[in-house]
Amino acid sequence: MKKSLIALAVLAASGAAMAQSSVTLYGVLDTGLTYSKGEESVYGMTHVGGNVNSRLGFRGVEDLGNGLKATFNLESGLSADNGGNYMNESGLTFNRTSTIGLAGGFGEVRLGRMLTSSYLAVSRYDAFGDTGIGASRAWSNWVSETEPFAALGAYPTRASNAISYTSPNFSGFKFGGEYAFGEQQKASDSRYIGVSATYDNGPLSLGLGFDRIDGNTNNGTDFTIDQTSWQLGGGYNFGVARLLGFYKESKFKDDGVGAAGDSAKFKTFGLGVTAPVGAAGEVRASYNHYRDSDAGETLKANQLSLGYVHNLSKRTALYGTYAYLKNKNKDGDNLGLELNGAMPGAGLSDSGAQHGLQVGIRHAF
Amino acid sequence: MKKSLIALAVLAASGAAMAQSSVTLYGVLDTGLTYSKGEESVYGMTHVGGNVNSRLGFRGVEDLGNGLKATFNLESGLSADNGGNYMNESGLTFNRTSTIGLAGGFGEVRLGRMLTSSYLAVSRYDAFGDTGIGASRAWSNWVSETEPFAALGAYPTRASNAISYTSPNFSGFKFGGEYAFGEQQKASDSRYIGVSATYDNGPLSLGLGFDRIDGNTNNGTDFTIDQTSWQLGGGYNFGVARLLGFYKESKFKDDGVGAAGDSAKFKTFGLGVTAPVGAAGEVRASYNHYRDSDAGETLKANQLSLGYVHNLSKRTALYGTYAYLKNKNKDGDNLGLELNGAMPGAGLSDSGAQHGLQVGIRHAF
Amino acid sequence: MKKSLIALAVLAASGAAMAQSSVTLYGVLDTGLTYSKGEESVYGMTHVGGNVNSRLGFRGVEDLGNGLKATFNLESGLSADNGGNYMNESGLTFNRTSTIGLAGGFGEVRLGRMLTSSYLAVSRYDAFGDTGIGASRAWSNWVSETEPFAALGAYPTRASNAISYTSPNFSGFKFGGEYAFGEQQKASDSRYIGVSATYDNGPLSLGLGFDRIDGNTNNGTDFTIDQTSWQLGGGYNFGVARLLGFYKESKFKDDGVGAAGDSAKFKTFGLGVTAPVGAAGEVRASYNHYRDSDAGETLKANQLSLGYVHNLSKRTALYGTYAYLKNKNKDGDNLGLELNGAMPGAGLSDSGAQHGLQVGIRHAF
Repeated sequence: MKKSLIALAVLAASGAAMAQSSVTLYGVLDTGLTYSKGEESVYGMTHVGGNVNSRLGFRGVEDLGNGLKATFNLESGLSADNGGNYMNESGLTFNRTSTIGLAGGFGEVRLGRMLTSSYLAVSRYDAFGDTGIGASRAWSNWVSETEPFAALGAYPTRASNAISYTSPNFSGFKFGGEYAFGEQQKASDSRYIGVSATYDNGPLSLGLGFDRIDGNTNNGTDFTIDQTSWQLGGGYNFGVARLLGFYKESKFKDDGVGAAGDSAKFKTFGLGVTAPVGAAGEVRASYNHYRDSDAGETLKANQLSLGYVHNLSKRTALYGTYAYLKNKNKDGDNLGLELNGAMPGAGLSDSGAQHGLQVGIRHAF
Repeated sequence: MKKSLIALAVLAASGAAMAQSSVTLYGVLDTGLTYSKGEESVYGMTHVGGNVNSRLGFRGVEDLGNGLKATFNLESGLSADNGGNYMNESGLTFNRTSTIGLAGGFGEVRLGRMLTSSYLAVSRYDAFGDTGIGASRAWSNWVSETEPFAALGAYPTRASNAISYTSPNFSGFKFGGEYAFGEQQKASDSRYIGVSATYDNGPLSLGLGFDRIDGNTNNGTDFTIDQTSWQLGGGYNFGVARLLGFYKESKFKDDGVGAAGDSAKFKTFGLGVTAPVGAAGEVRASYNHYRDSDAGETLKANQLSLGYVHNLSKRTALYGTYAYLKNKNKDGDNLGLELNGAMPGAGLSDSGAQHGLQVGIRHAF
Repeated sequence: MKKSLIALAVLAASGAAMAQSSVTLYGVLDTGLTYSKGEESVYGMTHVGGNVNSRLGFRGVEDLGNGLKATFNLESGLSADNGGNYMNESGLTFNRTSTIGLAGGFGEVRLGRMLTSSYLAVSRYDAFGDTGIGASRAWSNWVSETEPFAALGAYPTRASNAISYTSPNFSGFKFGGEYAFGEQQKASDSRYIGVSATYDNGPLSLGLGFDRIDGNTNNGTDFTIDQTSWQLGGGYNFGVARLLGFYKESKFKDDGVGAAGDSAKFKTFGLGVTAPVGAAGEVRASYNHYRDSDAGETLKANQLSLGYVHNLSKRTALYGTYAYLKNKNKDGDNLGLELNGAMPGAGLSDSGAQHGLQVGIRHAF
């Protein structure tokens, strides 16, 4: 997506003096029809986005001289279908990004809330960019219903209370990481640590990520769960098509504060391809295999996604995506995995399957 | 109201390439003194607006070539007196408008949340523009306290999860409509359908609207209520004054899922006049008659509103409005209708009356 | 801090006509490391700001001719560490400022929500600008835990539903005041009244403020509490350093609706100094003495704050602040006062002390 930058002439507040600067107001609105079919067929409007997640943001750069720059970015999620904030139905919040940074020859240090570098390094190998009904569920950290892991919440695609570092580009090689404070009496409680390395050179792209959230011993329950993930992926652009693949593994471990030390693993293996069609089109396809091991039982699911994006301009596109997800039933149980952005109430068929269809429009400004 | 457009030079993010576009930041702040007298006299600051409802918005248009345009609009309500959002006290939300659209010779298709065309077609014949203490209560869908209709909520001036169509202008004639998904397992549950037709040619203006919300059979109660409205209005500008009139009827019908099929009707008949006074002033007056039929009983109310707007510029105005609403008591009961934006706690006098006064300032940017 | 103004060409919506105007988008992001040590040591990211509180705002001025101007300002607080709103974790709200005003030779009248003139007149004599861990607690209205005063909430640094007046500058002398409606059936319930006077001439600066909130007799409890404050302060700039001092006293009085007429007083005495260091630095130091008299018992606390601000530009600065607060234990009790913005969970040491350290970056745009 090409974000349109709004160049603004900026006048220093001190009346006479003028300063050169820029603030960019930008955003994306993306919605359309979502159809989900599992136990029930439910139609509705796409809530967050089918091609690029909806957002509204402000960002800017100030040149401090000597190669040093101050940066900021505030970005809120949007629910294009009703005007709300998709992470927080009650209103606009800069919960996608809220950073202040210093950038220079050393790279960039940012403070606040941001996408983690581990997530960024590998989620880009999902042919659907972790967006819409075709997206991989790798980063939703699905864990089957066995307690205590079901209550874990999502994989940390973003970290608050964080300090991040992104290296400069060394001939295509970059690395980065974040430390996010848990802000608990015990300093390791709820803290996040992540690191990443990426290599991008011509047609070749590689990414590697590792991250970990420490459980919170002060969470009012008798257990605390550490979440550790590692992931890697790559892509190669053959011109006629770009091949993509990734593997991600998240481990949840009860550290035994209260109950016995139990653990669960959620693994995703993804393959994808994107290919230009004519001057303005792109087809996308992906296959995801999911495997959840919990309490000695392994449950599996498979997903096929197929999509087409037609660019009306650099900023505006029409798109359509079809996806099919099948949870393998085993001893009357299954993983219960649904498609990303499935309509609530659709559920799964008796055989553990769900179909999804999205057609929509995406507009960036 | 003249909205000031902020024209912004837009640069495509792709570095070199430049694109012509514009994003408009706009808004209205409107507040002042509100005095309400019913059972009690209560003074305070106008919460939403006395002349134009307060708001903050972003909108833009992208020319896609071949007469096609992409449009977007995000607009939040504001509570000018305390900085909140009047529909959602907890924060800024684009609950007034959140749309992405495609416009061309065929008209415009928009997706998201928007004012319904039925409401737009007729509410413009309220001399007070459905704003402030002088506004008609036609679109608040008052239904007397008899259950189950009291719990119905407001008339749908806006629809979320909607697809709207607005026709091009055919010699003054336009039509439009919306379909809004209920996003329920049963596709008709909670869905909204509305259509409208308008004619505007020189001094003559006419509007017609129809809309319907299907009840939700899955709402956890033993009844479900369909709401069906139709409305029409017109105006004629004689130069020295513009005469306005409208009629609106909303019917609430329990479809008999659980309890017996009951129904209620709320009717409004409105007459108004606006007239320029000097170069910068306008007087406004309106009369509204309300009639609510529920469970065999018909309750009535009448409202008189008188206002003056003095424009300091195209963007800024001072205004004053006085309104009087009288519910007719019948067998110890009355409709309980209050003025729009009345101060909480004022209530109604023993005879069912309420007086209201607003003086304030409106500034558009 | 130099606020960058974004000058925007504004076109009147009426097509042809052009109008001169400007809307300013501005803001501050400020975060960094906060370390608090009391009963526990807790590390985290600064939530609101260590040097200038984080915010995002829009403001504008329209020239109405004849020396008259219309003004507006919408300003939301931000939590730079997580993207939320620090007064309202659920989203962006213009709870810092929401005003529409008319300015001219007579001064300025504003309507809506704003900082009170009493607070503005004297809080500027806190060497840390009532921001960050070094700030005086004078304006947090700490009252010890004795009921009913503990439930009082904060000193009203801002008023909603308000009308404010600010005088023009008479040779350095200005005065102002606000009246904020309580919007209750009894007009005096919950209303706010404040007045201020300031004198600024060359090196000398003086400020005086008085304000009062009437208790709410309709608050569902059997008592109602009036809060009355007066405060004064001054500063003198000797060139090598600027000396600052202030005194503030808030009195809470149960007006005896239910329980006996009780009262409490919270007094703060503050001294400070700021001094430039080189071309880009400033050191700051302050001492605050607190005294709370409640139910015949007087509890005391003392605070020392020391800080350094290094300006990378007019808009961007690095800073560090250390503060130490000591509550005097008396008969096993103490005032329980903590540093402003202390990490939750740090608490106080057995001797009633808390240390705080903040290092961070502030960027204004």
